[in-house]
Amino acid sequence: MSMPLPRSDMEAGIRIFERCNELAHLSEDTDALTRVYLSQQHQQANQRVGTWMRDAGMQVWQDAVGNICGRYEGMKPNAPALLLGSHLDTVRNAGKYDGMLGVITAIELVSRFHQQNKRFPFAIEVVGFGDEEGVRFGVTLLGSRGLTGSWESHWLDKRDNQGISLAQALRDFGLAADQIDQAKRKSSDLIGYLELHIEQGPLLESNDLALGVVTAINGAKRLNFSFKGVAGHAGTVPMSLRQDALVGASELILAVESIAQAFEVVATVGKIECLPGAVNVIPSDISFSLDIRAPDNQQRDAALWEITKAAKEITERRNLTLSYDCFYNSDATPCSVVLQQKLTKAVMAVQGRSLSLASGAGHDAIAMASLCDVGMLFVRCEGGISHNPLEAIQIEDINLALNVLEHTLYSLSEA
Amino acid sequence: MSMPLPRSDMEAGIRIFERCNELAHLSEDTDALTRVYLSQQHQQANQRVGTWMRDAGMQVWQDAVGNICGRYEGMKPNAPALLLGSHLDTVRNAGKYDGMLGVITAIELVSRFHQQNKRFPFAIEVVGFGDEEGVRFGVTLLGSRGLTGSWESHWLDKRDNQGISLAQALRDFGLAADQIDQAKRKSSDLIGYLELHIEQGPLLESNDLALGVVTAINGAKRLNFSFKGVAGHAGTVPMSLRQDALVGASELILAVESIAQAFEVVATVGKIECLPGAVNVIPSDISFSLDIRAPDNQQRDAALWEITKAAKEITERRNLTLSYDCFYNSDATPCSVVLQQKLTKAVMAVQGRSLSLASGAGHDAIAMASLCDVGMLFVRCEGGISHNPLEAIQIEDINLALNVLEHTLYSLSEA
Repeated sequence: MSMPLPRSDMEAGIRIFERCNELAHLSEDTDALTRVYLSQQHQQANQRVGTWMRDAGMQVWQDAVGNICGRYEGMKPNAPALLLGSHLDTVRNAGKYDGMLGVITAIELVSRFHQQNKRFPFAIEVVGFGDEEGVRFGVTLLGSRGLTGSWESHWLDKRDNQGISLAQALRDFGLAADQIDQAKRKSSDLIGYLELHIEQGPLLESNDLALGVVTAINGAKRLNFSFKGVAGHAGTVPMSLRQDALVGASELILAVESIAQAFEVVATVGKIECLPGAVNVIPSDISFSLDIRAPDNQQRDAALWEITKAAKEITERRNLTLSYDCFYNSDATPCSVVLQQKLTKAVMAVQGRSLSLASGAGHDAIAMASLCDVGMLFVRCEGGISHNPLEAIQIEDINLALNVLEHTLYSLSEA
Repeated sequence: MSMPLPRSDMEAGIRIFERCNELAHLSEDTDALTRVYLSQQHQQANQRVGTWMRDAGMQVWQDAVGNICGRYEGMKPNAPALLLGSHLDTVRNAGKYDGMLGVITAIELVSRFHQQNKRFPFAIEVVGFGDEEGVRFGVTLLGSRGLTGSWESHWLDKRDNQGISLAQALRDFGLAADQIDQAKRKSSDLIGYLELHIEQGPLLESNDLALGVVTAINGAKRLNFSFKGVAGHAGTVPMSLRQDALVGASELILAVESIAQAFEVVATVGKIECLPGAVNVIPSDISFSLDIRAPDNQQRDAALWEITKAAKEITERRNLTLSYDCFYNSDATPCSVVLQQKLTKAVMAVQGRSLSLASGAGHDAIAMASLCDVGMLFVRCEGGISHNPLEAIQIEDINLALNVLEHTLYSLSEA
């Protein structure tokens, strides 16, 4: 069912692939890809991406927080813009596609329209956000939060691991801490934000699909649970008289799995500690973490309520003491229903069937959702592996993604 | 149903209690009880216990491995002896009753017979073993293994944490490494070994009983289990595609509990480690220990077979990799059926009902079983707490135990 690709399309995929490779050389490490916000490599990436934008027929500028921006005018000048893009910064020892793929593919799309002299009722802008990962200053989404005007002034005092403050880093980059407000865009200037990104999970691959449409970016809560029982001699305390904190915790860990499945959320116990931790002593103190995420806050909190209910039931029945506290909470970001529908229609047209899936990882679209409708298209990545040099995608999939974006823009212009 | 105690009996219990207190002052630590094999405090304890033995009408000697021994002749000289006793060494920061109670109560029993001029068809010997806990040289039961002739010559090279070899420590104590064989007793000289000991577990207390009869000293196996899965992003990998090693391990830990209950063994997972151990990463590597004990080797191994079967089923179903290995194995020591019957009859007479229970902890009786029939009487200890300064017993219980031993010896003389 997938559209036959003309020769020029294959070339587009190869070009995107090669440009991702090219950006991967802009790294502070010689043998790994690490490119952080407001670094020399960030500057170089902005220059390179700016050149590609210009070649694609766009007007180019760097905004007040260091995002590289390009604009391809619509049929009439000063029309509100559809914003496409993603981020240009990376984690340490990163893959080549997380972020960059979305920026470069958007430029390739505009280039295609430019060559065809195709104009839309809206302008198209492409943005390469300077910071999404938050590696340098420990605050994520600095690029998109600059564009949406949601910077918090105290962030300027944050320092990197060399002691350089964010304010100083802005100056070193040729920007000014007191002018970051100028990066802020008005809601009325944007008709929406569309981001292409690798899935960073295994769902598309396991469904044998190149592309899928994001329903929402999961909200997350993180909790610490503590089960307290009574330590005892592994040989002398009969099973019936034990208050074994580890057996109780194990029961809850299994309950977490089944509750997560029933409520269609993801929940993970990633850390567990056991005291006193001797081979011949019944465990008295177990603490473990819970990470729970869902595309909808209510759905997540309903699952969490079931989990804490199960924890209470288990600890009462087993004569253990329970405590837990939530140390992290972020809300879910729903994607625009209209953008989901248009993306899904385009994916159906290009690959025959579509898959709607939630994003487990965070994206620039989280910040952008405060300003305009957001939509996201996921491309499968090999084995679901990301934040890792092994990150890999297929050129055929990039071509399909480019076609889906093209379909979607035509569809938006019809609305 | 318990026998009314004459005034002299109450005094006996108090005397035993006070002698335990007295021995507790013979410690290498000033604010905690620690008395190890062949130490100065061991020498002092042997002297004190030797004096009490002499006062009880016994002929006293220290054997070639440092056990303090006393003999109360039977009706005829050189009759085979019933051996009573326990150990005089302690763990670090010990309680006052683990070991000592059995030695002191045995002396009090002989004292009672001595005052009544009561003689039996067998001699009665009391032994205070110099080492059971193995704290100083890392080998347990050195006292009873000396008496049974099961010392291994390479133990002489073992060193304590100050670098003193066991051979040197024997010399410092006035003994000789080349004469330890002289501690060995002949099987034909003994009609049995009877040990009174605190339970070190909560079973008697929970049954509201002062005394119980040991069926066997549990054999133990210890294993390490390893579950290997696939690490993944806690947000992006759906529940259905996870290979979470911790959830698999949790399932086995619950299975261990139910299998142990079904097979009437005790099984404990006391240690667990989780890698990579991050709040937002699905665990890929779990290792945990299993300690499994039963009064019968076949019973223990049957339970272990069920556990490994469950482990295989869980890891196959969850697409995990399983490995496990056994790093410790000790056989169960069954107590003599005749001695159990006689003890039980005596316990019934004294406290109205009896309880048969396995010993989860090791005792001198393990070594003694290679030489003669063994029997053990357990006294309840508060909260099942042992190896701890909080170790506590009731004087009334000591009196009951003394009466049970008296009944048992009369019963043995009738056989």
